[in-house]
Amino acid sequence: MIKVGIVGGTGYTGVELLRLLATHPMVEVCAVTSRAEKGLRVDSVYPSLRGFNDLCFVEPSIDQLVGCDLVFFATPNATAMHMAVELLDKGVKLIDLSADFRLKDVAVWEQWYGAKHVCAELLEQAVYGLPETNRELIKTANLVANPGCYPTATQLGFLPLIKANVIDSSLLIADAKSGVSGAGRSASVVGLMSESGESFKAYGVPGHRHLPEITQQLTSVSSTPVSLTFTPHLVPMIRGIHATLYAPLLDQGVDLQALFETYYADEPFVDVLPAGAHPDTGDVRGTNRCQIAVHRPQGGNMVTVLSVIDNLVKGASGQALHNMNIMFGFDETAGLNQVGFYP
Amino acid sequence: MIKVGIVGGTGYTGVELLRLLATHPMVEVCAVTSRAEKGLRVDSVYPSLRGFNDLCFVEPSIDQLVGCDLVFFATPNATAMHMAVELLDKGVKLIDLSADFRLKDVAVWEQWYGAKHVCAELLEQAVYGLPETNRELIKTANLVANPGCYPTATQLGFLPLIKANVIDSSLLIADAKSGVSGAGRSASVVGLMSESGESFKAYGVPGHRHLPEITQQLTSVSSTPVSLTFTPHLVPMIRGIHATLYAPLLDQGVDLQALFETYYADEPFVDVLPAGAHPDTGDVRGTNRCQIAVHRPQGGNMVTVLSVIDNLVKGASGQALHNMNIMFGFDETAGLNQVGFYP
Amino acid sequence: MIKVGIVGGTGYTGVELLRLLATHPMVEVCAVTSRAEKGLRVDSVYPSLRGFNDLCFVEPSIDQLVGCDLVFFATPNATAMHMAVELLDKGVKLIDLSADFRLKDVAVWEQWYGAKHVCAELLEQAVYGLPETNRELIKTANLVANPGCYPTATQLGFLPLIKANVIDSSLLIADAKSGVSGAGRSASVVGLMSESGESFKAYGVPGHRHLPEITQQLTSVSSTPVSLTFTPHLVPMIRGIHATLYAPLLDQGVDLQALFETYYADEPFVDVLPAGAHPDTGDVRGTNRCQIAVHRPQGGNMVTVLSVIDNLVKGASGQALHNMNIMFGFDETAGLNQVGFYP
Amino acid sequence: MIKVGIVGGTGYTGVELLRLLATHPMVEVCAVTSRAEKGLRVDSVYPSLRGFNDLCFVEPSIDQLVGCDLVFFATPNATAMHMAVELLDKGVKLIDLSADFRLKDVAVWEQWYGAKHVCAELLEQAVYGLPETNRELIKTANLVANPGCYPTATQLGFLPLIKANVIDSSLLIADAKSGVSGAGRSASVVGLMSESGESFKAYGVPGHRHLPEITQQLTSVSSTPVSLTFTPHLVPMIRGIHATLYAPLLDQGVDLQALFETYYADEPFVDVLPAGAHPDTGDVRGTNRCQIAVHRPQGGNMVTVLSVIDNLVKGASGQALHNMNIMFGFDETAGLNQVGFYP
Repeated sequence: MIKVGIVGGTGYTGVELLRLLATHPMVEVCAVTSRAEKGLRVDSVYPSLRGFNDLCFVEPSIDQLVGCDLVFFATPNATAMHMAVELLDKGVKLIDLSADFRLKDVAVWEQWYGAKHVCAELLEQAVYGLPETNRELIKTANLVANPGCYPTATQLGFLPLIKANVIDSSLLIADAKSGVSGAGRSASVVGLMSESGESFKAYGVPGHRHLPEITQQLTSVSSTPVSLTFTPHLVPMIRGIHATLYAPLLDQGVDLQALFETYYADEPFVDVLPAGAHPDTGDVRGTNRCQIAVHRPQGGNMVTVLSVIDNLVKGASGQALHNMNIMFGFDETAGLNQVGFYP
Repeated sequence: MIKVGIVGGTGYTGVELLRLLATHPMVEVCAVTSRAEKGLRVDSVYPSLRGFNDLCFVEPSIDQLVGCDLVFFATPNATAMHMAVELLDKGVKLIDLSADFRLKDVAVWEQWYGAKHVCAELLEQAVYGLPETNRELIKTANLVANPGCYPTATQLGFLPLIKANVIDSSLLIADAKSGVSGAGRSASVVGLMSESGESFKAYGVPGHRHLPEITQQLTSVSSTPVSLTFTPHLVPMIRGIHATLYAPLLDQGVDLQALFETYYADEPFVDVLPAGAHPDTGDVRGTNRCQIAVHRPQGGNMVTVLSVIDNLVKGASGQALHNMNIMFGFDETAGLNQVGFYP
Repeated sequence: MIKVGIVGGTGYTGVELLRLLATHPMVEVCAVTSRAEKGLRVDSVYPSLRGFNDLCFVEPSIDQLVGCDLVFFATPNATAMHMAVELLDKGVKLIDLSADFRLKDVAVWEQWYGAKHVCAELLEQAVYGLPETNRELIKTANLVANPGCYPTATQLGFLPLIKANVIDSSLLIADAKSGVSGAGRSASVVGLMSESGESFKAYGVPGHRHLPEITQQLTSVSSTPVSLTFTPHLVPMIRGIHATLYAPLLDQGVDLQALFETYYADEPFVDVLPAGAHPDTGDVRGTNRCQIAVHRPQGGNMVTVLSVIDNLVKGASGQALHNMNIMFGFDETAGLNQVGFYP
Repeated sequence: MIKVGIVGGTGYTGVELLRLLATHPMVEVCAVTSRAEKGLRVDSVYPSLRGFNDLCFVEPSIDQLVGCDLVFFATPNATAMHMAVELLDKGVKLIDLSADFRLKDVAVWEQWYGAKHVCAELLEQAVYGLPETNRELIKTANLVANPGCYPTATQLGFLPLIKANVIDSSLLIADAKSGVSGAGRSASVVGLMSESGESFKAYGVPGHRHLPEITQQLTSVSSTPVSLTFTPHLVPMIRGIHATLYAPLLDQGVDLQALFETYYADEPFVDVLPAGAHPDTGDVRGTNRCQIAVHRPQGGNMVTVLSVIDNLVKGASGQALHNMNIMFGFDETAGLNQVGFYP
């Protein structure tokens, strides 16, 4: 049994951590912080947790967290960086679900996140927590930067193609669609159901923070320069990301289906669907699974990859648990064996 | 370990049984039947089950089911009754999620369900499977009639009041609202998202099949005649039932909150919320839990009870598992410890 | 042609006024105010209005509005009362879509709205703008209090029964359900689609501001004391209210269908559906129409009335236009002839 | 005044024609056909039309339609072609909202629509009814093939770029998303809200019937060969199409914003949004308007066009009215001046 703390327990990724950890056999949640809800019972704010959690929210402070083996940061960007150094110094391992440690280039981070990074020296040691690419590094990491939701769905779709060097990586397109929970649990007008229900739109077309993250990661595994056009869209549903990925095919002879199946043969959370399939976000709802299909429409020169995840699980809290399992030597699937929540 | 079969594996209650049973430690699913999908892998029809179930659908027949300890009927009404006698004779226990064995009066059943009942002799021995009222009978039952979804939410809300004899049972109102999955997984126009999305309406106001079921059950525990006005409505969401219940209060001195908390103190799946609460179907989504709040608006003479369940879990497949657990002496909560799926 | 101003042009009732007025042949919109958006083009905030409105938002001030024949207040409660006296003095007619002038008893208003009323002297002269009861008074009114959304749907359902004195008005129940646009266009957590989508709950069961409004109005037409239990619920859709109304029937011989059809025979915006019907909010979406059905389930002693409106039209901005048409002698249906927006 | 008939009055495009025609000053609807609903009042099937239409459905037959000046076919594919020759011979003009006359190459049509075309000789004279490209031909046409919904949104987005010859037309991508009403009003499982709500998926990736239509039309205006990858997706909303279009930019110096604004300067139903905008399907809901934005992300070599329409209006029935207005010399915007239905 390990002791874990959650900083930022009132956002969706925080609550989702609590949902998943409630079924994990090796974890005791010792502290859940919230400045706004300090003193309140967690299950008075989230009645879905009644009977599973009898903690009260505590002030986020080093004292509250120093007894933990692991702390998850489920906080807004530019928050974790303020506590990371001190917690790491005291021997606490960290998994940051925000973006503070995802980018290696501090100038790029500061440009996209509009803040001064207060511990840029940690960027080098932080391990990007996509288990499908970084499993070995995660095993010994003290600081894991949990990937963004769009970057997870996008990378998993492009990786087999880029590693096999069969596409033109200078003309990549990621047309990605997310449910509204991706915007978090903060009061807003644009997130109102009256605004986001029964409508569909793109956003951030001129530039989105997940673009440099995806580009950095794909570049790190590509033998040729990567150029990506990334278009996020908002879907009138709560959970789910669907990334539709396009790349010109260079190698006309490659068996794309076999390529994907082989690449992910040993991955517990990537499920390559049979040829011709169209994955549905509804089939992975509530799970840590990415379902992928690869197509070559009309046998032409464009590869189309369809990649779906639950943005709050594989795109956030579930992947964080996966990273925890790897860091502490647990069964990788512990706490993550949910069947998709359909219908 | 027991062996179970599921007749009617392609409806929502069938799939939900498979989802819940996948986490049950004492059950092996041996047969899933579907006439239409015979021969197909279950997980090819339901990709959410990939990795959890490698069965193929088989023809519904006595031969396929006779080796089971228990068979669930997740079939349309007037189906289970055609196989029940033979399976019971061969020593197979049955839990029928349809309405074939819920009503004791065969004439009433035939009037509301528009068919001739082919084994009316079983109605007497069939046990109505609401554990909160019939736990002892369920323990030794061979044939359990799993309650309807509306009747579950409605009975759990009225029971403490009726048993305590503090309301006028001749003026009961159940204004109930259900998500669209209650209508099942059959092709229809009214169930299209274009029809049922972004709209709200009542249906069955002149009479609904669940009315005689609720009246029969409430009458069986009431010391005074029961008269109920029942209005079902369709909510543009997938899962969830919210029953808003009204009854004139006879005993002005009763402590309603204490009454409810005491009544359900030992029930694992009924959760009485604190005074003043408004239960939300979203907090019990995916769980076998009923959350209830009792109000006396403006301290007046009307009691208002708010009772929410997930229609596919506590209102169907979860309650069926609960019944199974009781029938076979398993831990009552086995396979049913899900945290509410929020958001 | 009359000149109208809209105070509070960035809420949903304000935008809906602009949508409806765009098709009105006798109205020129001269000023749309918004403190927050001052100086911005209205159609830059609401691209749906591009081509229909070239105004910019102006500061809400007497100067901006004094040239108008009529000003609509589409503001939060406790706002209109601060400008009403001065505008009326200058000869501007007012229709207030908020609650400032709906209650006749200032003490009751102050209790429910939590503010000091600054012009209680106007409450007496303010006309409650439900045309179906107050048409004659509206014709000569200078200050119209536009009814609340729930009160509109509820009153229209109960009125024929109460006026005919055929029900027990001491046991009225209004179980009402509203789409989320009723909560307005303000940043909030509870209004997020992640919170209000795919879930259903009651709110305000201990007491809701629309209760005293409904009670006041029903009492004013009833020959016996009125006692109402009112339960509002939130539906995961954007527009629409469905009121399900219950009352014990006193007169067993009354022809309810004929009663309703006769009562509303001359009303352009109340449509009594054929016997046995279930009105759907989707059929009145976007219109100023109330569709009503009256039932007597199983021929028993309870009347069930189903009443649906679009909360932003008949429940707010459409009714305000109707009042304007009456006040200025226009055709009552001018600007309000929309066909229901289905699907 | 002209007399029009509607064949197939019970589908969504049929009902939408009735909604729009109800406000058209120059049209009398004389016949609405439905084999299934023959004899029923139209407004008993569609209560939203109560008060606007007192017709009964009639059998679809030449006799019923021969007195019309114009007949709309709002029928499934491969239906209109069976009545077209006879009606044209009798001097009735036709607008077919299905696909029977959209493709010029009968072999291609028969391949994609899986039927033998019974009047291929009409394909040559049929005019493809996209007013923005074919206005002059439409004026004198007797047979108009109303464009598909996806093809409308896609063509309007690509046209300015292709005509200006500034993109590489061999690498076009149309990632398109549609609300569920696009699938029509037929009983189905996939269209159930339980299936299509709260989920998102692509479909038809290997090939969709709208691909040859789009390719044919873009090819007809392009000076270079057109190759398009087209991916349709299903959005959990009722109305709306969002086409996200990608093309490599050949001419780095072109002012894209000016190009689009100039191209559509005189078009009443194409609205080019200001630079940097993200059109929202919610802003064109219920209208015949296409809102478009053009982007060049990070100033790179990929053009991204965002194009939104209401699939039932500009993508079907509204465009059909527009064609009618052009054919009969009416004001092009007659019956089509709706403000976007927001929220």
